[in-house]
Amino acid sequence: MDYNNNTPVEMNVLEIRNLLKEGSIEKFREPFLDLHPNDQMQVLFELEKEERKQLYAYLEAEELAAVFQLMEYEDQFFTSIEMDDKRLAAVLNEMYADDAAEFIGKIPQAERKEALLDMMDQTEAREVREIMSYPEKTAGAVMTKEFLEIFADQRIDGVMAYLRKAGNEAESVYYLYVVGAAGELVGVVSLRDIIVSDADRIVKDVMNTQVISVDEYLDQEEAAQIIKDYDLLAAPVVTKDNKLVGIITFDDAMDVLEEEVTEDIEEISASKGSTDPSLNPFQAAAKRAPWIVLLMFLGLITANLINQYEETLEAIVVLSVFIPLIMGAAGNAGTQSLAVVVRNLATGALEKKGLFLMLRRELGTGILMGAACSVVLLGLVTLLYGNIVLAFIVAVSLLLSLSAAALIGAVFPIIINKLKIDPAVASGPFITTMNDIVGLSIYFSIATALLEYL
Amino acid sequence: MDYNNNTPVEMNVLEIRNLLKEGSIEKFREPFLDLHPNDQMQVLFELEKEERKQLYAYLEAEELAAVFQLMEYEDQFFTSIEMDDKRLAAVLNEMYADDAAEFIGKIPQAERKEALLDMMDQTEAREVREIMSYPEKTAGAVMTKEFLEIFADQRIDGVMAYLRKAGNEAESVYYLYVVGAAGELVGVVSLRDIIVSDADRIVKDVMNTQVISVDEYLDQEEAAQIIKDYDLLAAPVVTKDNKLVGIITFDDAMDVLEEEVTEDIEEISASKGSTDPSLNPFQAAAKRAPWIVLLMFLGLITANLINQYEETLEAIVVLSVFIPLIMGAAGNAGTQSLAVVVRNLATGALEKKGLFLMLRRELGTGILMGAACSVVLLGLVTLLYGNIVLAFIVAVSLLLSLSAAALIGAVFPIIINKLKIDPAVASGPFITTMNDIVGLSIYFSIATALLEYL
Repeated sequence: MDYNNNTPVEMNVLEIRNLLKEGSIEKFREPFLDLHPNDQMQVLFELEKEERKQLYAYLEAEELAAVFQLMEYEDQFFTSIEMDDKRLAAVLNEMYADDAAEFIGKIPQAERKEALLDMMDQTEAREVREIMSYPEKTAGAVMTKEFLEIFADQRIDGVMAYLRKAGNEAESVYYLYVVGAAGELVGVVSLRDIIVSDADRIVKDVMNTQVISVDEYLDQEEAAQIIKDYDLLAAPVVTKDNKLVGIITFDDAMDVLEEEVTEDIEEISASKGSTDPSLNPFQAAAKRAPWIVLLMFLGLITANLINQYEETLEAIVVLSVFIPLIMGAAGNAGTQSLAVVVRNLATGALEKKGLFLMLRRELGTGILMGAACSVVLLGLVTLLYGNIVLAFIVAVSLLLSLSAAALIGAVFPIIINKLKIDPAVASGPFITTMNDIVGLSIYFSIATALLEYL
Repeated sequence: MDYNNNTPVEMNVLEIRNLLKEGSIEKFREPFLDLHPNDQMQVLFELEKEERKQLYAYLEAEELAAVFQLMEYEDQFFTSIEMDDKRLAAVLNEMYADDAAEFIGKIPQAERKEALLDMMDQTEAREVREIMSYPEKTAGAVMTKEFLEIFADQRIDGVMAYLRKAGNEAESVYYLYVVGAAGELVGVVSLRDIIVSDADRIVKDVMNTQVISVDEYLDQEEAAQIIKDYDLLAAPVVTKDNKLVGIITFDDAMDVLEEEVTEDIEEISASKGSTDPSLNPFQAAAKRAPWIVLLMFLGLITANLINQYEETLEAIVVLSVFIPLIMGAAGNAGTQSLAVVVRNLATGALEKKGLFLMLRRELGTGILMGAACSVVLLGLVTLLYGNIVLAFIVAVSLLLSLSAAALIGAVFPIIINKLKIDPAVASGPFITTMNDIVGLSIYFSIATALLEYL
């Protein structure tokens, strides 16, 4: 472990295992529950199946829920089939509605989903169904229902009394949302404001009416970015007519941003869905091979392109020597532009900067890099191969293909983003292959045109 | 704007501009201060220089600090030179110590740093100096000093009274840290715990002694990851002997994770430091061109490699047709593995999974994808070019080079990470170029060996 004060997992496992062996619920519960749920989860993963079953029996549904809602779906799945469905439904009741909805939503069998929802408490099940009814990746689909509502005419001491009662149920107690008679959001008070305000003041006088809220159908990434930009602990989710329906907390926003980053990196590298370390080689290959094969067919187009210049190549075999250099430089410049644009799309910086300015910058960068490489190569190729026409062909091709590559690398993700096409199409390898074709076309066209001088 | 309830920036700008024209401080302050500091910042950026100076004059140092600490360094710099240094020092006094330290740390001139620190309040300046004394990218360098300390023998109502007084100063009031006589961290109480506890209880009885803390010299990314894994609002930063020296809040952790992600993406794409959209083409080219030129020289090695097989190529010109295909496939498979490993290094998933298992999976994935491509190509090349030996050479080369590429793409970032070398060396384009060389070596070796059968 890299941090202080935390007992290494192995020691916790040893201790908990011994306590389970003793078989005393009382002796077991306190040391186990003293652990942070994240550490409880680590211990759980190290235990044997029989020990795990014993542990489930020793814990309350609420305590199990605290661990269960931290797990990834795969681990939740394996844990869920180790307990009977009635117990599982009890655990789901105690989970935050967003976490329960996420788990149930991922269960493949529709009957199983329904069966679990039917076994749950009616109120909980209704909240979970509501969250599950939102389209994927919207604010509504990641919000939770456990938030605190107060009214504008309440006194601060009344709010404190309410907090003492309801504070343990809410996912976040640090913002209290002030709603009107129709459930519309009229203000927000932070717990900090409540604490520093006198007991006899009225909510209306201390609340902030300029509430930063997100629409229920807003894209989850944009919602998370707002939470980040405004340094919020949570953002209220509202309907078109401003009715408060849920909140998104900062930790869920962090998860959303992490998920989107993984997608961006998979996008840049054409490895969609294969980052997950729990996949075996067959599963990973199945996810990635389609891209490699597709790109290979594009590579065959490049092969065909070269084949069309076979006469040029047969006349001057040394031309083939520079194929990798032209391909490589164009591919690399395109990947750089792609990464820059994908990242700035993700952070929202592109909207501030403006598309046109960004494209102009990327084209300018490509031209400048192309010019620099051209000058170097013009000297180097003349020196190494004693052929100034060849050097000229290579240098000019490099200048043109680097400029084109930088522009293509920047334009592609923007188009993809506007058209809402599967972003994997704008992947780095895809753009590299595109740029190979453009670069080699330029190279062989110029070479063929100047063939007589070579 | 994509979210509800927030007036578009343009409307805010219009309103604020009109209020500034009226020239009444009283009329200006309330509407402006009603905006979230993030929106205040957006308005500020749209104003003219003279309007901005008027605005600085209308605000208290504390109010300016709230806006100033949200800005990127470039914007802070331009804002800072529009006010005199005495005023700037007053603003720095009111900023959280971590934000002030970050700004002062980025000022290039050493004398200016000292001058500003000397003009600041002694206590504030000491805190800022303490943070600046930590090595870059450690927990200590991103922590803040505005946290709340309480003692184990205090009563809950005493804590509440303390909170009412000190609550407005702290960066985060939602965790209270319990310290012993020597300043050592002995426990933590959440504000939620305080609220739901009876007034006459003692801190000792409600505090959690299993505190998740981070060492002052821990890498900032690991610290941020702990905050994320444990869903903390803040993590205490402690010395080796467990003395509490600061806290890192979740919003700072989010910034750290975002910064690290940008670095990872720049790493994968060899575009280090050039993601920043405010760079002009010359600056962007200056940051990226060294990589393109370096990779071009590596490309010359590839060129040289092909040149060595000139005899083979002259005998069978059609061999050059498959150069892009071999290069492309190896490059793409390597980029995929690189992305998978870089991402899993970042999320910490690799440590859980184990290095060896991950490498074995990547190699396995490469072999499977290579086998799939080989079978397709064996048929296709035989069909298109009527040459079964050529088809065999291409197919076997692809199998071997894809397997090697997947392994190289996975091993490289791990080695770089272990040796703490500049990770840009493990960039996608770099690995692509490496894999080009490996792939083409395999291809031409096999082709030369089987030349007589072609």
